[in-house]
Amino acid sequence: MPSSDIFLGETIGTALLTLLGGGVCAAVTLKSSKARNAGWLSITFGWGFAVLIAAYVSAPLSGAHLNPAVTVGLAVKNGEWGDVPVYFAGQLLGAMLGAVLMWITYYGQFRAHLADPENIRDAKLGPEDPHPHDQAGPVLGVFSTGPEIRNVVQNLTTEIIGTAVLVLAILTQGLQDDGKGLGVIGVLITSFVVVGIGLSLGGPTGYAINPVRDLGPRIVHALLPLPNKGGSDWGYSWIPVVGPLVGAALAGGLYNIAFA
Amino acid sequence: MPSSDIFLGETIGTALLTLLGGGVCAAVTLKSSKARNAGWLSITFGWGFAVLIAAYVSAPLSGAHLNPAVTVGLAVKNGEWGDVPVYFAGQLLGAMLGAVLMWITYYGQFRAHLADPENIRDAKLGPEDPHPHDQAGPVLGVFSTGPEIRNVVQNLTTEIIGTAVLVLAILTQGLQDDGKGLGVIGVLITSFVVVGIGLSLGGPTGYAINPVRDLGPRIVHALLPLPNKGGSDWGYSWIPVVGPLVGAALAGGLYNIAFA
Amino acid sequence: MPSSDIFLGETIGTALLTLLGGGVCAAVTLKSSKARNAGWLSITFGWGFAVLIAAYVSAPLSGAHLNPAVTVGLAVKNGEWGDVPVYFAGQLLGAMLGAVLMWITYYGQFRAHLADPENIRDAKLGPEDPHPHDQAGPVLGVFSTGPEIRNVVQNLTTEIIGTAVLVLAILTQGLQDDGKGLGVIGVLITSFVVVGIGLSLGGPTGYAINPVRDLGPRIVHALLPLPNKGGSDWGYSWIPVVGPLVGAALAGGLYNIAFA
Amino acid sequence: MPSSDIFLGETIGTALLTLLGGGVCAAVTLKSSKARNAGWLSITFGWGFAVLIAAYVSAPLSGAHLNPAVTVGLAVKNGEWGDVPVYFAGQLLGAMLGAVLMWITYYGQFRAHLADPENIRDAKLGPEDPHPHDQAGPVLGVFSTGPEIRNVVQNLTTEIIGTAVLVLAILTQGLQDDGKGLGVIGVLITSFVVVGIGLSLGGPTGYAINPVRDLGPRIVHALLPLPNKGGSDWGYSWIPVVGPLVGAALAGGLYNIAFA
Repeated sequence: MPSSDIFLGETIGTALLTLLGGGVCAAVTLKSSKARNAGWLSITFGWGFAVLIAAYVSAPLSGAHLNPAVTVGLAVKNGEWGDVPVYFAGQLLGAMLGAVLMWITYYGQFRAHLADPENIRDAKLGPEDPHPHDQAGPVLGVFSTGPEIRNVVQNLTTEIIGTAVLVLAILTQGLQDDGKGLGVIGVLITSFVVVGIGLSLGGPTGYAINPVRDLGPRIVHALLPLPNKGGSDWGYSWIPVVGPLVGAALAGGLYNIAFA
Repeated sequence: MPSSDIFLGETIGTALLTLLGGGVCAAVTLKSSKARNAGWLSITFGWGFAVLIAAYVSAPLSGAHLNPAVTVGLAVKNGEWGDVPVYFAGQLLGAMLGAVLMWITYYGQFRAHLADPENIRDAKLGPEDPHPHDQAGPVLGVFSTGPEIRNVVQNLTTEIIGTAVLVLAILTQGLQDDGKGLGVIGVLITSFVVVGIGLSLGGPTGYAINPVRDLGPRIVHALLPLPNKGGSDWGYSWIPVVGPLVGAALAGGLYNIAFA
Repeated sequence: MPSSDIFLGETIGTALLTLLGGGVCAAVTLKSSKARNAGWLSITFGWGFAVLIAAYVSAPLSGAHLNPAVTVGLAVKNGEWGDVPVYFAGQLLGAMLGAVLMWITYYGQFRAHLADPENIRDAKLGPEDPHPHDQAGPVLGVFSTGPEIRNVVQNLTTEIIGTAVLVLAILTQGLQDDGKGLGVIGVLITSFVVVGIGLSLGGPTGYAINPVRDLGPRIVHALLPLPNKGGSDWGYSWIPVVGPLVGAALAGGLYNIAFA
Repeated sequence: MPSSDIFLGETIGTALLTLLGGGVCAAVTLKSSKARNAGWLSITFGWGFAVLIAAYVSAPLSGAHLNPAVTVGLAVKNGEWGDVPVYFAGQLLGAMLGAVLMWITYYGQFRAHLADPENIRDAKLGPEDPHPHDQAGPVLGVFSTGPEIRNVVQNLTTEIIGTAVLVLAILTQGLQDDGKGLGVIGVLITSFVVVGIGLSLGGPTGYAINPVRDLGPRIVHALLPLPNKGGSDWGYSWIPVVGPLVGAALAGGLYNIAFA
């Protein structure tokens, strides 16, 4: 595939991913959304179908990686790293664009939510414990992930394991499909794989399992002129970047040992 | 396809769409329905499978557009506008027929709901804020969409973005399928795409993303002899018509630039 | 297909249907079930996947009608009525066997539920209104359907419309598949069609949309030695038999006019 | 398939199964999980997609049995028992590995949950009745199954019926697929079959329907150094082993009589 198609496909696809994935978090979280409090199953299916839509649209242009972890996993498998920087660039740009589109879509809901003293106070107190989450703003969770219990080793391990499962499922796909890359059935199954990872492994950290899905929207959160938005929790931000990349490398290695 | 098949297919298909899509709104909303308060996930899956059934049945006759936005998107892509009026006519007629069938199915539930003073009072007060929704009747939401926060720019933008995502997914489908049009896997995936758009982008306006899905049932709401039904909110009615058409044109243009 | 295969396939398949479909109603309804109060979405997906399993297993033997309405719809379409009595016999026998298996599976839950005075009193008072449902026992809803609002015309109409949608979707399947009958994708889509009909049209009557799915378990309810089980509501029992058969005939006729 | 591939595939696949299946139980159960109280539908879809991921990854190596009951069912069908011990060994080892990975993923949540006196007291009192569940510790349900009502005959019968349905669905798959084993559509359908069995038949015992899925994590529960973890309920442990094996043999026999 030509580099321009890769860049374009990844930009469009990852923008759809964070528009729709961030969108379901906004829908379930923010005041004056029809989907408010629709629950964890809504969030996991929302992210799964975000992957479905994003991959379905971008597959013809770039093969629909949409995730540096997937790019790294495929590079480890295939031993080809030449296009990796182009993939990364498109993915990060797309993830930021999608977060901006998500904010535009929920513009009024963000305003209403952040004007309500209760939401701001609740965020400072945290959902379940009495210790204030000093670093995490009241709507940061709509943009990026954060842990329920802050523990570097566990948080990193959780992201490594979750991403390794994702990348292993994508790498072994090639053994079953017809070899023409990510077919429509493969896209559908991958979206359910993402729902499953969310349901099963998302409890501790909110399953970034994708560096740009977390970093891109976090940058946008830091830049947007949202009143009362609070901090962007940069202290945590390296974990959903490093964890998925390590998990992808491990999955690629396991694939080369056990499946190749 | 002959015009008579197009007209018939779109009428039958869009009638199924608003019968089933309106049906799930009635099921979750109205008093004395077994599904009352079944939640947002039920509504989004209900609309998704409404698309599945409607497209599955009508695809052999008309290709299952069922939505003027899809018709416009395909016309922009293919540069063929000849059949567009026939599609539009069948879609609007079908959307009205389906809303009538939905009302017949939930006849007793509508009567019970509108005889209960609590539902009428709640509707006047609105779900979350103290300002009365003067224009929206207590069961209008079963027929047509309405915004949680009334803001022309945001409401229009939300409908444009949601529809652009839908139409882009449908247009790129042709790049992956076997070229014979909307196959059964494509229909299934499109239905999950609609679930995903609902979960992710439906929070602000209730995701019309289809002019006739909103206008047809709104006309029926205005005509039906329902006691205490309240207004049909004609002031808002142009947004879910114009927004989706603009979104479809944008998606068609993006397709021609980036994917063609 | 030989008559013995048809009979065997329909008996096994319809037994799976009412075992699993009745099972999800028991799971969500009865005391001391892990799934108690799991909600309407669980019930609709439970019935949909009951259709998936039952059709998947029985399709090689009998083509997986599992429903007299489907048999009638296909007979109207194909003009062949010779095997209809064999289909009906297997379906009714299977529906009864499945209900017995369901009762065995939830044996302890039935005992616990019917020993609790609160469940019996609640059932007599009805779920939402003060009029006692004299005919319906406290666990009849696990076996058979019943209306939220008792109105012969509306109840019949609802079952006619719901079944017509189901049968129309099944009849038009042949236009899209490869002509070799109900393939695995067709089975999967049909199961989601059933989820969709449940979500959208199930609110008023609980969507029998299948005469034996209602009649077979109702007979079993009448025969089982359950203490405090209450009446079997025979006054309502003809509606979920006649409605689906009329709906199927209408769908078959519509198919022959518009799609053949 | 060579024995080494079988062993490796079953170990990897079953580890994914109990990592993800145990994971969704942890996510919904434990304190300080984002998915806490996400409900029964989340659990059933979580286990279904655990099967999807595990089978998708391991199918190229071992055919993705992942369950001694499936291995027995296929052996009865095919009359070939030679590889059975290798399958069993990989499955048990994998099930234990997966439970350890699940514990690592939810390490902090286990600690928080078991440090909260309320969770420990609640577990001792049982969820619905006043009799203490002496044998079952407060987090055993995250690892292994247990009955709501303790009754050997009913509990065994429930596991037999649930497993027979699962194995029958898997055995008849070969009649519809292209004969090349478990294709990707087959894997997807099997995962929905598992969701359906959970929704419909999971109420009484929590649907082990797989000896190693229950025994492997129970051994891990007994060995892990969790404070306040309580007993491993060994008195119940034989039922989710024997029941599924009996159910599989019955399904294999029924297959050979009715479908072969």
